[in-house]
Amino acid sequence: SSLLPDLLGDTKAIDAAGNSENGISSKEFAMEVDQKDPFRKYRDEFEFPETGEEATIREPKSRTLYFCGNSLGLQPKRAREYLNEELDKWATYGVEGHFKTVRPWVTVDETVKDQMAAVVGAKPLEVTVMNSLTANLHLMMVPFYRPEKSRFKILIEEKAFPSDYQAVCSQLQFHGYDPEEALIKVQPREDGALILSEDIVDAIERRGDEIALVLIGGVQYYTGQFFDIPSIVQMAHNKGCNVGIDLAHAVGNVPLELHDWGPDFACWCTYKYLNSGPGSIGGCFVHEKHANRTDLPRFAGWWGHQKDDRFKMEHKFVPSPGAAGYQLSNPPVLECAVLRASLNLFIEAGGVPALREKSLALTSYLELLLSMKVPGIQIVTPAERHYRGCQLSLRLPVNIKKVYETLQNEGIIVDTREPDTMRVAPCPLYNSFSDVQQFVEILAQVISNVK
Amino acid sequence: SSLLPDLLGDTKAIDAAGNSENGISSKEFAMEVDQKDPFRKYRDEFEFPETGEEATIREPKSRTLYFCGNSLGLQPKRAREYLNEELDKWATYGVEGHFKTVRPWVTVDETVKDQMAAVVGAKPLEVTVMNSLTANLHLMMVPFYRPEKSRFKILIEEKAFPSDYQAVCSQLQFHGYDPEEALIKVQPREDGALILSEDIVDAIERRGDEIALVLIGGVQYYTGQFFDIPSIVQMAHNKGCNVGIDLAHAVGNVPLELHDWGPDFACWCTYKYLNSGPGSIGGCFVHEKHANRTDLPRFAGWWGHQKDDRFKMEHKFVPSPGAAGYQLSNPPVLECAVLRASLNLFIEAGGVPALREKSLALTSYLELLLSMKVPGIQIVTPAERHYRGCQLSLRLPVNIKKVYETLQNEGIIVDTREPDTMRVAPCPLYNSFSDVQQFVEILAQVISNVK
Ligand SMILES: Cc1ncc(COP(=O)(O)O)c(C=O)c1O
Ligand SMILES: Cc1ncc(COP(=O)(O)O)c(C=O)c1O
Repeated sequence: SSLLPDLLGDTKAIDAAGNSENGISSKEFAMEVDQKDPFRKYRDEFEFPETGEEATIREPKSRTLYFCGNSLGLQPKRAREYLNEELDKWATYGVEGHFKTVRPWVTVDETVKDQMAAVVGAKPLEVTVMNSLTANLHLMMVPFYRPEKSRFKILIEEKAFPSDYQAVCSQLQFHGYDPEEALIKVQPREDGALILSEDIVDAIERRGDEIALVLIGGVQYYTGQFFDIPSIVQMAHNKGCNVGIDLAHAVGNVPLELHDWGPDFACWCTYKYLNSGPGSIGGCFVHEKHANRTDLPRFAGWWGHQKDDRFKMEHKFVPSPGAAGYQLSNPPVLECAVLRASLNLFIEAGGVPALREKSLALTSYLELLLSMKVPGIQIVTPAERHYRGCQLSLRLPVNIKKVYETLQNEGIIVDTREPDTMRVAPCPLYNSFSDVQQFVEILAQVISNVK
Repeated sequence: SSLLPDLLGDTKAIDAAGNSENGISSKEFAMEVDQKDPFRKYRDEFEFPETGEEATIREPKSRTLYFCGNSLGLQPKRAREYLNEELDKWATYGVEGHFKTVRPWVTVDETVKDQMAAVVGAKPLEVTVMNSLTANLHLMMVPFYRPEKSRFKILIEEKAFPSDYQAVCSQLQFHGYDPEEALIKVQPREDGALILSEDIVDAIERRGDEIALVLIGGVQYYTGQFFDIPSIVQMAHNKGCNVGIDLAHAVGNVPLELHDWGPDFACWCTYKYLNSGPGSIGGCFVHEKHANRTDLPRFAGWWGHQKDDRFKMEHKFVPSPGAAGYQLSNPPVLECAVLRASLNLFIEAGGVPALREKSLALTSYLELLLSMKVPGIQIVTPAERHYRGCQLSLRLPVNIKKVYETLQNEGIIVDTREPDTMRVAPCPLYNSFSDVQQFVEILAQVISNVK
């Protein structure tokens, strides 16, 4: 499967072939690469929306070019089957589904635990699924944001996702601090530019003594940049700060090695690259080193109580070791079923590191074609492969709203973020090189028409 | 529909008919009442588990006698249809399902809000669906458990559900208090007896000055007693305490008038009497008087931000008024779909107060037959109709485990709670008088065999 990066790695040679019929920007070239794509069969595992009747460039009723896996992943076809299995169990056993049959609900979270741990590079002990992303951020700040007199600040990246920003501000306020004073935002060097990982590390080095918690996005939702998590974690720990990572845009997108990188906690949602459906269950990592700590406060609930005697209905709380000890309520069975459908595909495909090879090639291809075909386009996302996931964030030379609407009309699903950025995220599990080729060809055409 | 309580109200007269062929404990009598039951058609709206092949008293493959709606409600048949609609939208529109078509996901919580508010007797402003029960208890304690120097205690009922107990203990610990000192448990007058609402009111009156929060179950999960919420709330407020109610066993079971009763908050799950499936979404009430308060701390997230500019991605948090302002994350669409399927049935049936008439009759019938047919049985739940929901908690004159297993074998689904209690909860939406009649007949038989 290392064919793909090779093919694209040597872009200069291919580029020299120019824009000829079989040049890199041609339909034929893209189709040829698709033929060699070892992951191409997974495309048929997903439900693609169809292009509408109003399309004039693309074929009506053809598959959309779907580049919004960073917002809501496509539906794995198995999801319906897995859901129906759980509905059947509910119909057939009622409450006894908790204990009877395959995958009894009482341990439904364990049907996704190992896969989830693999996807984030963690030990199963370190991972649980529960609640939703913002809720988990708060629940993790209970043990890991412990402000003290001279160390009470939280460091985040400027333009963090609003919910994260609002969450940390409300935590600061809850503890009696003014976010104006207690929130440290790492800025880009120039307005609108990227925030450099080294600047985050640098800020932690300079001000670490004041910082109780560093909370950083793994892959930044707006710019698509993949921060240097290991260096951030290392510096934070050197300076005595706790570190949490919001992996919403990283999980299922870039290879993660949470255990080795060592953040204290991480939280994510599963409806983006993990394709588990709108608003579905969140995930949570708590590093092994905290697995058996009894000195950390937590908001406790019966589902976090050790398993052996959870139903004795005794009152004393004895947490399960690891992330599971932070669970509160009995888990949502239907959401776990859809998540399992999706995670199994990741495992079957060989995991995120395997998929990453295709992902790098796909995004490089997108980048290359954009630079060839769309003069004036600005790619906000870093050019270095190691500092990005699959998403490219684009600034267009023309009015973005018009472009967006025309693309939508042609069955091309991307998204825009205020004020001026278009996000395009080709996913290795279900996007093809032809998807990318068609997208750029049409984008170029639309932009020149709008001009 | 007032036929039913009448029929049973005059139990003495009917009782006089004795145990004859058409007496009150006969199959014929139960079938006659079922014929007159105005809610009987709703029974066909639910999926009943079937009795197993190993049954010897009951017909194999017949409908189970399902009395576990207090633990997991039966599946509304519409649930599958409603779920499939959302899966279809996901397949057809991908991420655009958030804004397109009927019931766009961006406001999916609003598709259940009015029904949910009706079921708990609240204004729509006061209600939201989000997270799960224990998580919501914690999130509500952020604004409503505000310990101060001389007022930091939490009052609960002895033998509250373990998760509630663990939640309040962890809140106390989080704020630096020792539960041994800071938790006030209202005890029954004698060991194993009921806790009287008047004793709760009394404890609040005596110790209210020390109490920051009163957290009480609406209907107690173990005993089935329905506490006198209005009196508890009134005394708590007289003494300057906040009050929260755990409605897990009350919602969809007993008529609630949360707005008028005036607790500060309430939380519930929807998988019991509200039939929304294992581990499904929780509900939350915040009284109107707090709807626009800015002085209460909260754990904030983007979904609680006012709707008009939630997607401007600006950072400043301006909460939606009311309960919606406490939402954190984009809501789980599949869970909302199942909940909507179930809530619509409640609304179509005329709401909980209408169903309560049948519920009172059904439970009185159960009580009457038990006392006639099962010598030595002890009914823990209060005899006064106003102080209980549909559930009766029973202590049997023989080994409970054996009885439980034999019943299970006969397709009779009840549950047991350590150490010695059997809970039986006939639900007016899907249980019949014949269910109750058969249950008691078989229970009597099983107990005399075990003896
Ligand atoms: C009274 C009560 N409170 C809390 C809970 C815990 O619910 P969850 O697991 O949804 O948080 C239950 C569950 O049965 C309950 O009955
Ligand atoms: C980086 C990031 N953080 C937080 C959130 C909020 O997620 P949720 O609504 O699941 O809490 C999102 C949602 O898109 C996100 O992209």
